Amino acid sequence: MTLKAIGIVRSDFREPSAERLNLEEIVSEIEIDPRLTEALDGLEGFSHIIVLYWMHRATSERLSLKVHPMGRKDVPLQGFFAVRTPNRPNRIGKSTVKLLQRRGNVLRVQGLDAIDGSPVLDIKPYIPGYDSADNTRVPSWITR
Amino acid sequence: MTLKAIGIVRSDFREPSAERLNLEEIVSEIEIDPRLTEALDGLEGFSHIIVLYWMHRATSERLSLKVHPMGRKDVPLQGFFAVRTPNRPNRIGKSTVKLLQRRGNVLRVQGLDAIDGSPVLDIKPYIPGYDSADNTRVPSWITR
Repeated sequence: MTLKAIGIVRSDFREPSAERLNLEEIVSEIEIDPRLTEALDGLEGFSHIIVLYWMHRATSERLSLKVHPMGRKDVPLQGFFAVRTPNRPNRIGKSTVKLLQRRGNVLRVQGLDAIDGSPVLDIKPYIPGYDSADNTRVPSWITR
Repeated sequence: MTLKAIGIVRSDFREPSAERLNLEEIVSEIEIDPRLTEALDGLEGFSHIIVLYWMHRATSERLSLKVHPMGRKDVPLQGFFAVRTPNRPNRIGKSTVKLLQRRGNVLRVQGLDAIDGSPVLDIKPYIPGYDSADNTRVPSWITR
């Protein structure tokens, strides 16, 4: 199973951050391979899209099975599958973002949690009901 | 960028279907590599999880840039990035599912849109607000 980049992230954020960013303030661009421009047709009909990207600055080697979420020592250790750490066996990031504009092969988006230069793997339309969940429950450390 | 399977899907659905399934009725199991069992600790605190898997029966070769969504000829052609067709450059599927039970390295889930034998790439906790979107807009063909 090998991946090919279908585009690249252009963002003012150039370094990974352990802190939770205020994603609403982040506007980035996704530049899609111009040969795939036509495959974006119709995406403008969706207010939100899902971006899968490769977290190229993370590691997938010698992973600790348990980590403190966002490095917060006040939160008990959690398995890495229970947190969103980029350090995982397959370094695929998943962000739900607002599609502000499409101009040819360039998507302008709000809320993308990927640093500059991240290879983009896939773009999918966000479909409420399919991609969202009702009656959710999360552990208390998420909100504290 | 190469991927390694971290688990496998066990489902009664053995063949891809062009039709939209009633996902609420589908209960499947995800068997995680036993060496990674501990990395699941804490996942039980979440009601829903995101499953990334490899759509191994799809193709990424000689793709048409535009397709009819779900093969429906009554819907105008859309770029493949604007639909959820499994035939895309990187055959990564993304499902939001309900976590019914965790037993060691086995996750019992409801609503997984992956056929039996699909390699699992990642498990992430579903975090409302981060993974969901408000004030969404979708094209009319989605609901008609």
